[in-house]
Amino acid sequence: MNSTVPLTISIMGTGAMGAALAEALVAAGHRVTVWNRTRAKAESIAGAHVASTPGDAVAAAELVILALLDDETVRASLAPVLNDLNGRTLVNLTTTTPEQARAIGEWTESANVAVLDGGIMAIPSMIGGPGAFVIYSGDGDAFARYESVFELFGGAEYVGEDLGAAALYDVSILGAMYAMFAGFRQGGAMVTTAGGSAARLASMMTPFLQAMARHLATYAPGIDSPADYVQEQSDEFTAGALDLIEKAAVESGNPTPLYGALRRALIGL
Amino acid sequence: MNSTVPLTISIMGTGAMGAALAEALVAAGHRVTVWNRTRAKAESIAGAHVASTPGDAVAAAELVILALLDDETVRASLAPVLNDLNGRTLVNLTTTTPEQARAIGEWTESANVAVLDGGIMAIPSMIGGPGAFVIYSGDGDAFARYESVFELFGGAEYVGEDLGAAALYDVSILGAMYAMFAGFRQGGAMVTTAGGSAARLASMMTPFLQAMARHLATYAPGIDSPADYVQEQSDEFTAGALDLIEKAAVESGNPTPLYGALRRALIGL
Repeated sequence: MNSTVPLTISIMGTGAMGAALAEALVAAGHRVTVWNRTRAKAESIAGAHVASTPGDAVAAAELVILALLDDETVRASLAPVLNDLNGRTLVNLTTTTPEQARAIGEWTESANVAVLDGGIMAIPSMIGGPGAFVIYSGDGDAFARYESVFELFGGAEYVGEDLGAAALYDVSILGAMYAMFAGFRQGGAMVTTAGGSAARLASMMTPFLQAMARHLATYAPGIDSPADYVQEQSDEFTAGALDLIEKAAVESGNPTPLYGALRRALIGL
Repeated sequence: MNSTVPLTISIMGTGAMGAALAEALVAAGHRVTVWNRTRAKAESIAGAHVASTPGDAVAAAELVILALLDDETVRASLAPVLNDLNGRTLVNLTTTTPEQARAIGEWTESANVAVLDGGIMAIPSMIGGPGAFVIYSGDGDAFARYESVFELFGGAEYVGEDLGAAALYDVSILGAMYAMFAGFRQGGAMVTTAGGSAARLASMMTPFLQAMARHLATYAPGIDSPADYVQEQSDEFTAGALDLIEKAAVESGNPTPLYGALRRALIGL
């Protein structure tokens, strides 16, 4: 904080992620209030005030950040205190679908509250460290006002006024992560049934995928402006490669619908 | 090369990849012979001798490297000269399935030839540069004898005597790469239908996936010795996350079988 005036900030939900967020705010000198359904969890956060009710948490802060279990928990926690949000900024970092994020905006519309939705691209231990970032969307003025607070968590990426946008980017990135993990899991099954090692596979796959991840930017124009885009690799080549990989999976005794699904996702057939 | 005696090496197949391999060998001072079905392509490689027939290419070298289109082309090119391989080392860098790689070993068994199979983890322009590597399997003595030659292409990773092993690791790694690309393609479709940008998605996805790729080594014990492995993330959590991502895909107007396939690959249901 240094020369900055401390702000009043509440964190609702102090699971592993909410606790990490609260600790980052306390460390920076902000006046942090925490609320959790199970009070004991909230009490373990050194330097934060513990609110007994959602109403107390909302009353204590100009900036209310939610890190709850799911959309249902958000609704249940906020319903009794919706009007108390008047004049405040609400940042929902709970993992939801884009539609759920947009619906929170409609639901709180009567309350004169600035709403942001966010997707946290980090595990709790990464919060405040290098590599962590959070994607935000919704009220642009509110984002600008609190950007320096958000940067205490990691990089702060604002993707637009549409409250659903942050969740869309969030799930897109997580989907690609799970795709990578699924490719490793399937490959690990294939090499181990032939006497190989998943650890050895990881040692080669990690640097290869890190290098190939740099190519995503070069493929982006194929999605953003497909009419102008000349593909580096033909659909026939991609289809042939995935058919060969699927054949190898079957031959190794590890048949899978994975590669067929990748083929459909990549070339539509 | 410097203090090393130049070796006689033939490259059969001078498409983009074969040409890159030949150029790396010429640059290192080896005596390189190239053969290609379309002779003009072979003639464009400066410093290499051009063989008119597969027989001339085999006769000219102690080390014969194949970079052909597919397994069928390998069979067609070698069939007339199988016995001429006597006393030589054959390295098949053509992309094949593990079974096809093993079958080349059986097919050449009568010819007294040391056989290696290899999978090239690079595009042609990367050959000889940082990041490129080739996975080899098969005759361990032959690998040791020519390892310094192989290192002219990039890292040389030997994964065992099973001729099919290199192809298994190769397709496993490529499968994970296509999985990552499919995740990006699907995510790009989702963000753009809501007014977002695939380029913006790539700018956030690339560093995130690069960081997450480091975790593959920590998941490897779950495949190599599942009985002793305690999962960091429960199957229920993974299932919930993928269901939420799939729901977001449907809501965005981009339904896909991808996430269901990932769910099955990761948690088996």
